[in-house]
Amino acid sequence: MRATVMYEAGDVRIEDVPDATIVEPTDALIRVTRACICGSDLHPYHQMERSEIGTRMGHEAIGVVEDVGSEVTKIQKGDLVVMPFAYSDGTCEFCREGLPTACVHVGFFGNPGYDGAQAEAVRVPYADGTLFALPVGEDDALMPSLLTLSDVMGTGHHAAVAAKVGPGKIAAVVGDGAVGLCGVIAAKRLGAEQIIILGRHDERIALAKEFGATDVVSERGEEAVERVRGLTGGFGAHSVLECVGYAQAMETAIGVARPGGAVGRVGVPQDETIPASLPAFFGNVTVGGGPAPVRAYVEELLPDVLEGRIEPGRVLDRSVGLDGVPEGYRAMDDREALKVMVRP
Amino acid sequence: MRATVMYEAGDVRIEDVPDATIVEPTDALIRVTRACICGSDLHPYHQMERSEIGTRMGHEAIGVVEDVGSEVTKIQKGDLVVMPFAYSDGTCEFCREGLPTACVHVGFFGNPGYDGAQAEAVRVPYADGTLFALPVGEDDALMPSLLTLSDVMGTGHHAAVAAKVGPGKIAAVVGDGAVGLCGVIAAKRLGAEQIIILGRHDERIALAKEFGATDVVSERGEEAVERVRGLTGGFGAHSVLECVGYAQAMETAIGVARPGGAVGRVGVPQDETIPASLPAFFGNVTVGGGPAPVRAYVEELLPDVLEGRIEPGRVLDRSVGLDGVPEGYRAMDDREALKVMVRP
Repeated sequence: MRATVMYEAGDVRIEDVPDATIVEPTDALIRVTRACICGSDLHPYHQMERSEIGTRMGHEAIGVVEDVGSEVTKIQKGDLVVMPFAYSDGTCEFCREGLPTACVHVGFFGNPGYDGAQAEAVRVPYADGTLFALPVGEDDALMPSLLTLSDVMGTGHHAAVAAKVGPGKIAAVVGDGAVGLCGVIAAKRLGAEQIIILGRHDERIALAKEFGATDVVSERGEEAVERVRGLTGGFGAHSVLECVGYAQAMETAIGVARPGGAVGRVGVPQDETIPASLPAFFGNVTVGGGPAPVRAYVEELLPDVLEGRIEPGRVLDRSVGLDGVPEGYRAMDDREALKVMVRP
Repeated sequence: MRATVMYEAGDVRIEDVPDATIVEPTDALIRVTRACICGSDLHPYHQMERSEIGTRMGHEAIGVVEDVGSEVTKIQKGDLVVMPFAYSDGTCEFCREGLPTACVHVGFFGNPGYDGAQAEAVRVPYADGTLFALPVGEDDALMPSLLTLSDVMGTGHHAAVAAKVGPGKIAAVVGDGAVGLCGVIAAKRLGAEQIIILGRHDERIALAKEFGATDVVSERGEEAVERVRGLTGGFGAHSVLECVGYAQAMETAIGVARPGGAVGRVGVPQDETIPASLPAFFGNVTVGGGPAPVRAYVEELLPDVLEGRIEPGRVLDRSVGLDGVPEGYRAMDDREALKVMVRP
């Protein structure tokens, strides 16, 4: 089958690889109908050292189940399923607590030994715990939004949950990438009264406003903090969604949080420490978040997607076939595209 | 009147100073009947640079109201009151939200221009918001435990609240000082099923066990993390109370937290950054806490003190008069005393 393999920073190729197959009795095999390129895929695209065997890429997919192992009971051949970026058994105590990204059997698609989603097919471990069967056909018009349930919409929602967004709250979203934009959707959906987006890319800001952002702050650092304070009666935001992952973004996030507020971080941290320990402490600001348990959020978010109340698929502003994936990486890296959908 | 003044590290004196008086119409004047020395007083005792005018010391007190300003309506002359370490107006939105340590008029006793509590008397700003009238006489046997409501018991409780202790949870308490021991009381009071104390001072550990600690870990760093994991089925504690404030303690706190768990920190941070950002992120561990809103906790904790269900006053293992305060600092610094009560 054909799949995306990265060999080093900037070197992404579509290659023939051995067909995905059932290995464990709890596996399913899916034919990928939609995948996408993630902002986190750009980290190796910038930094990866040369590898002879390369790394399979992609961890977000919708697909049709082609085969299941002998112990799979819930997922069936022919199901159209959403595949979250992490696989999980669905039965351990962390899965039962709603944190499948801490599952005792957790793993991530594209890690060594596991298929990536930017491919024709994927072997899915723990299929019954990992996959969610969708009640639509594979070419449904909602496919882009449904695809975001595999990662980016669930991740924006997690930021909002960790930031304790609720009715009447003031939310601030640090970052106008695809996750930040989904964070705006999530903050609005959870009832935030004021939603301040911190970002500086015109098209993304325009989309953020359509999603519900009420204010835009294009400054950075201390100036951004001052602007947010000015927009919030001097005190800052109750809930801050940190959707970037760099130390400066985190410092801004803590700086714009109101005393007693919460920062929900979902951008993968690029630093060993969290900045602004003292301001966070003296303001009783909580810092939470991490890899989003997107599998646990599908049930909650799906009805709003199916009924058109949220349209997170709008962050997918370009679509390519498998051959177009290398060009998709380039376009996202050059900020020509916000997020690229792949139709293998 | 006589009051405690620190002039530089190690130089604590009892001196005659101008009498405390009513300055603002919202002030009260209290005659101090009990005060104490705080672990945080040892920071300047170690580090303070020479000052000609010195710093008034002490921020925890019980006293009798001697006079009130013209706008004070709730607190009355003759009331026996507990004075939290921070003053607050009791009416702003942060006070109403239960976070008086973020009051728009907040201030701290002993800061420049404000009296310290290790003295014969104290001017108390925003008396109606700050003070809490107690339903007992000034020599009641419960006085040590009531005194802890001014800071240390409320602070231990805040650590437990920020760490989301609840019925059936596993709690770990990092630090066996007076705050850590009150954290054990708080964790037990909030229903923790297992309470692991991390510390290595025999007498304090013995008291922690009497307060409800079920397990003791005397190792530090990575060994402590391994031990706590071993005591908790391999996963760590749901709730971690960080009662020290040093980076190593915080790193241990994050290390012993279970995925999805929470660290409540109340030790004043001695560093600019929070360590272990990546383990906290990948474990979806929340870090919260800060200066405890002890005034907001008095109502909740007082009945348990009055009815003897908790005995936080046992952390006060030495009592001195005002003249004995310098010796009290020395004894706490040398770990001869856990926490020193002052009877001016």
